[in-house]
Formats: sequence, C-alpha cells, structure tokens
Amino acid sequence: MRCDILVVGAGILGLSSAYHLKAENPRKRVVVIERLRGPGEGNTAKSEAVFRNAFTSETNRVLASSSIEFFKHLEREGYNLRLAFTGYLWLLSQEQFEGVGDAIRDMQREGVRLTIYQREELERMIPRLATSFEGDEEAELLGLPPIDVGLLAHNCGCLRAEALTKAYESMFLKLGGEIHYRVEAKRLILGAVDELGLPGEPHVWQEPRVRGVETDRGVIEAETTVVAAGVWAGRLLEPIGFDPCMRPKKRQIFVLSDERLSVLFDIEGFNRHRVLPFTILPKCSLYLKAEPYEKSVWVGCSDEIGRAFELEDDPQPELEYYKDDIYPILMKYLPCFRDVRPVNMWAGQYAVNSFDGHPIVESIPGLIYVGAASGSGIMKSDALGRIVAALYAGREWAELFDGSRFRVSDLSIYRRRTERERFVI
Amino acid sequence: MRCDILVVGAGILGLSSAYHLKAENPRKRVVVIERLRGPGEGNTAKSEAVFRNAFTSETNRVLASSSIEFFKHLEREGYNLRLAFTGYLWLLSQEQFEGVGDAIRDMQREGVRLTIYQREELERMIPRLATSFEGDEEAELLGLPPIDVGLLAHNCGCLRAEALTKAYESMFLKLGGEIHYRVEAKRLILGAVDELGLPGEPHVWQEPRVRGVETDRGVIEAETTVVAAGVWAGRLLEPIGFDPCMRPKKRQIFVLSDERLSVLFDIEGFNRHRVLPFTILPKCSLYLKAEPYEKSVWVGCSDEIGRAFELEDDPQPELEYYKDDIYPILMKYLPCFRDVRPVNMWAGQYAVNSFDGHPIVESIPGLIYVGAASGSGIMKSDALGRIVAALYAGREWAELFDGSRFRVSDLSIYRRRTERERFVI
Repeated sequence: MRCDILVVGAGILGLSSAYHLKAENPRKRVVVIERLRGPGEGNTAKSEAVFRNAFTSETNRVLASSSIEFFKHLEREGYNLRLAFTGYLWLLSQEQFEGVGDAIRDMQREGVRLTIYQREELERMIPRLATSFEGDEEAELLGLPPIDVGLLAHNCGCLRAEALTKAYESMFLKLGGEIHYRVEAKRLILGAVDELGLPGEPHVWQEPRVRGVETDRGVIEAETTVVAAGVWAGRLLEPIGFDPCMRPKKRQIFVLSDERLSVLFDIEGFNRHRVLPFTILPKCSLYLKAEPYEKSVWVGCSDEIGRAFELEDDPQPELEYYKDDIYPILMKYLPCFRDVRPVNMWAGQYAVNSFDGHPIVESIPGLIYVGAASGSGIMKSDALGRIVAALYAGREWAELFDGSRFRVSDLSIYRRRTERERFVI
Repeated sequence: MRCDILVVGAGILGLSSAYHLKAENPRKRVVVIERLRGPGEGNTAKSEAVFRNAFTSETNRVLASSSIEFFKHLEREGYNLRLAFTGYLWLLSQEQFEGVGDAIRDMQREGVRLTIYQREELERMIPRLATSFEGDEEAELLGLPPIDVGLLAHNCGCLRAEALTKAYESMFLKLGGEIHYRVEAKRLILGAVDELGLPGEPHVWQEPRVRGVETDRGVIEAETTVVAAGVWAGRLLEPIGFDPCMRPKKRQIFVLSDERLSVLFDIEGFNRHRVLPFTILPKCSLYLKAEPYEKSVWVGCSDEIGRAFELEDDPQPELEYYKDDIYPILMKYLPCFRDVRPVNMWAGQYAVNSFDGHPIVESIPGLIYVGAASGSGIMKSDALGRIVAALYAGREWAELFDGSRFRVSDLSIYRRRTERERFVI
C-alpha cells in the first residue's frame, strides 16, 4: 500500500494530527493505522481526562487554552464530549501557597481566572473537609500538611476522552481519511533521500529518509510517516536512532462510587455542576475527580521516584497502591472516603519527558514525531494536531483554534524554546 | 558492607568523582565498585580520547577548559598522560564556514585560540589533500563538499584515556579510597528518609531515599550512592523511576597503521608533534586522529539517524561500516588512505543526550547521578568530578581547577541552565 501521509497510532494525538493534516491537504491520501480495535483504546482511554489553562509557562497556556476553546466549539457543533467546567481546586498549606505566590500573580496577569478561598470558606463549602491534624499521630506519620488556602482555576475541568477521540475520528473519516484498526506498525523503513539501490542504504554519506512502515499486514510506503504512538513511539524510533525523549511510567486510576460520597456531588459555589472540582490535595499531589455525569470519583496520584520507568503492554493496577499509598491520605482529608473501596480501577502509562515536561514535535526527512508529555496529551491535543500539520506544510508558525500563533520549532528537540512550568505543586 | 559514599563505575567519571569526593572528605569511607577488572575498561577505554576548548557554549567551554588545565597539571606532577596538543582542524567548505561565522567570532571573543587557513595553505601543508572534486562522479554521488577553509583550534588534542583513568585511580587510592573490581551493581536499594519498617516502603507519602546498592557480592549500604555508570546508568536508575535522559548508541573506531600514512606524521606548521591535527572532514563529520606516539590513525564517524539507540553489553565493530561508509569519503579527501585496511577496530557506546548534548549532574536523597553526554566524558571529566563533590557538599557553586566557578544546578535535569552549542559541524 502507498499513501501520502501515514499516521501511526489512533490515540488522541494521532487522530487530531490526522484530522488537521487531512483538513489542510484534502487531496492527499491520509491513512491512520492502529494496532488496537478502535480509536483511543491505548493510553488515551486510561487517562484521567482533565484539562486546565492554569499554567505559568506560555507554552502550556497557549497549547491548552486553544485546545479547550476547540473542545467548546466541538460541543457547539453537536459532539457530546461531556465537557464539564468543574474547575481545578488546589488545596494548599500556607507554606505551599507562599511558594507559588509569584506563579499565581503571573497567571492572573496573563488572564487566567483564579479564585482564592480561605480555610474557613473551604470548610463551609466542602462537607467534612479536614484542614488540620494537630495531635493526630497518624497524620503526622504521613506528613500531612494542613489546608490553609484553596486555589480554584475556573476554565478547567474534565471531558470524556473516548468522546473526544471519536469526534476526531468521525471528522477525519468525513473528510475522506482512512483508518485501519488491528494493523500493527512493526518497524520504520529507513531509506535515503537519494536512493542508489545499493545494499545497506542509507550509508552514512546519504541523507536518511523514512519511507514508511512495515506492519504485521505488509509494508505501507508513505511520503511522510507521523509517529503518534505514545509510550510505544520508542519501539519504532529508537531502532532508527531517534530518541523520543520520553520514558513510559505506569499511572493508575481508582474509581469509587458509593452513597457515602454523595456529599461531593452536592457542593455549592465552585461550579454549576455542583460537584467538587478536580481537586489536588496538599500531599503527594494526590488528585480526585468527581465525574459529574456518572457520580463517581476517580482518584490518582503521581508517583515519581519509586515508580519504575519501563514499557509494559498491559500494565495492571495495584489494589495495594490504593490501600497503602492513596487511601491513608485521602481518608484523612476527606473522611467521607473511610472504608469506601474502589469499584473499578485500571492502569495506563504516561510518557514522561523529564527534561521540561513539554510536548515534542520534531521531524526528520519523511517522518514527524509528536509526543505529549503525559497529563498533557488530551488537554493539548488540538493545538498539537495543528502544529503537526503546520510542520508538515513547512510553516514556521501554526495558527491555533483561538487565533493564537505558535512557533512550530519551539517544540522541536534540537531547536527547543520552552519555559519551565513554575506552577507545579 | 557500609560506607559513606559508594561510587558505581570506575570509568573516567566515576574515578574523577571518587577522587574529588575523597579529597574533600578525607575522613569519609569512599568506595568504588566496578563490574569489570580494572579502571576505565568500559567505554572510557573505547573512546577517541580527544579534547577541545573550542565551543560557543560557556557550559562546554568552562567544563572542558578547566579539565584540560588539570590534565596539564597532572603531567607536571609526573603522570604521563601522553597529552598531545595536536589541535583540532575542521576542514570546511565556504558555505559551512559561513554558517559558523558567528560561532567563530564568539569563540575568538571568548579567548579561544583559532587560526584560519585558506585552501592553498592547506594544500601546501597536508600532502595530497583533495580539496575539490569537479568532474568526479563518485564524489558527486557521495555528496562531498569542497574544502575551502581550515579552522585550527590550538588548545585541543588527545591523550591516553587509560593513563588519565589510572591517574585518578592512583590519586584516589593514595588518599585512602577503596576500589572493588569485579563487583557488579545489580539494583539500587530504595528506602525512605524516615523509615517506619512497613512492608512496601517507600510509600508515596514518604520521601524516598537511595540506601545503597545490591551487588552480585552482597548489599552495600551507603549514605550517598554516586551512579557514574555511563550507558549502563539506566539499568540502575530506570527501575527506581529516574530517567538518566541519555540513550546508548554504538560508536566505532578503526585504527590504521601503514607506511602510506607516514605523510600524516610529517606535517609542518600545525603543532610541535608535526602530525596532522585531529581532523574533521566536511562530510558526515568524519574524523581522524593521528596518534603521535604510536603513529597510527584512528578514524571514526558519528552516525545519527540510521544507527539504533540500544544498550549492548559487547558492541561489535563492523568492517563493512569502514568499507562502505567511511572509506569512500576518507579516500577521496586523503588519497593516502587508498587500499589501507584497519589493523584494529573496536566499538563502544556513547550516552547521547538528544536534548542539549550537555552533561547531567543531578541528585535525589541518597543519590547523585553524573552522566556526560558522550564525546564529553573524558574532556570534561575533571570539572564534572568537582561538580559532583560540590553537589555532595551542598554548595551552590563548584570551583574548578583553573579557578573558574560553575553553578552546580546548571547541569541539573530539573533546574537546568545550559546554552545550546552552536559550533557543531
């Protein structure tokens, strides 16, 4: 098979890229291949699926804000993404709050809508929230900071990852794009820009060019191959000597659904859904999402040192991780979780860019690689798809949905220009 | 076994770090373990072992210049490193020369001693150098640029990697350091800063701390473990969730020794050794070193895309790579290589930092990681050892041998401040 553009991976980034590439190049044959049976069945489906615009780094802010605007647009166009602007709520100790004081002022100056709550207000608004643990030996052992301040970012929330992925799939198919599920890319085919028909090409004196992909169903030749394979990108890229600069790490989500948690779905003042916002506790960045449509709570925690970098094809959630690591913290701050057990749980993998945490969009002849440092894939998906399309077209700047412009090379590996995110708690 | 500081790896970085750590902390028990039988037997021994001070990036310049000054000092102290200031000679087309014009001016302003030669001078100085290939179809197929300009950097040259490594070993042992060869680090032992004696520590709510190393000869507990394991660092660091941010790639050296090459050892004007400087050809950055003591020529070539990233324990050189990739280029520019075959060859592995090419020195509780993006390990070894010792001591600035100061956190992963090197040809 031959095509103009071959996209490897039908996760959120692959489909966003495929859609924008096809939209800009309607006459080109754009083909997506995916080893799984449907769109977004890899790590996209396993994501927490939340989004925020509250960042200090302009890179983060522009990529996320424009994507969020596009999500709203999609809902207006009739795609039901279950978009819910429940907000992000960081619960902070006074010390933590002071540590991010500059970052908060910078975000406000950049127009990020934030509200600050004092402890008493939080206690009034969130039923049974524990804000201090004086005399509680267990809490001391756990090293739990008190909650002195709440910081709410408004233009943030959650959506259905599956629905967003399917929206891109459907728009791409409508434009005449092709998707082949259950086709697995095995290796990239590397040739030379000027092939001579010699054995062993490309030689070091030739300019290498990716010519397509060998799949389990045969070879697909393409003018341009877009690798949007998430944590699996390395399996394709490393053999040709390209470092995706991201490493896979397991992340787990535990779903709780219980009458005792109903208090979290009847909270006034934060959002029109009357639910607890996506909330980040002051210990271990433990986070919980009150899913407003299903009335379930999704809980997760970013474990850094102590959680291996390794590629797993079928990562498994660990109930012990919930019981011994997450639950003790959760239950202290929010006693409504006492004795509530997960009704569902799963594990996916993050692609972690340890250097600066930002996405990567890079090209070499015949190849474009797009990788979103995880936690970012969904919330920046639309902007990244447009940046891939701009890179394909050879434009220096990508125009994003909200009209903002983004310099394509800023996400390059070799010509990178990103600012470190300072709002990390 | 217990010690204060355990250094994993007796390559050049491990031994430089161990020496400076012991020198600054004479009462601490500093132990080096190494899986091989002697110092520098891993990739240090397989290096081209050249050094330069000609960089635009201050990071590179400071780290290399101060290390070079220390090498001179070691020779004055009686260590015979076979230090030879043969210079680096970049042979460039006019177009390439213009592309680095700004970089050259910047280096000169920073005091890097450079001499520019015109084509005619080069032709006079280097016997049989071919500088243009008009009408040569083979050369056109190979895409060989002409040579219009030569750029010589003086404070550059080569040394014996083995001798330098042994010098650090000997100085370290003299101070009372211990080295255990044939002891292989199998995994890092991760505990918590405040251990509670619970199963599964560290839990996510505990601060993790590296407690030492499990080796094939038993456990070694250490207050601080320094991982200086080069391309093997990932095997230790990834399981604890730390990304070394460098990926291994094979590099080969081919050694030629032949009467026909004697012309390269009788060249006036570049250096007092009367040899061809370490020379970089204008195609593929192919490089050759005329080793002044052995009268052999070491040839290598940095293959980027097309050469896999993968960790190999015993990488093998490929004679075909010499014959089909290197030889055609070499023989065109320097016809004295015609029909000369390698008398020796070997392969090692580079640790490639694709992001910015600079070394990394980072710490987490109980652990220091030092990695030099390869091609840099030897020439920056002394500065990096001092930076490791400064990080251990908790100092913000490291004082280097030549008196210059270097901010330790500039080589951190998370607080990194490096400038992209612009003198890359």
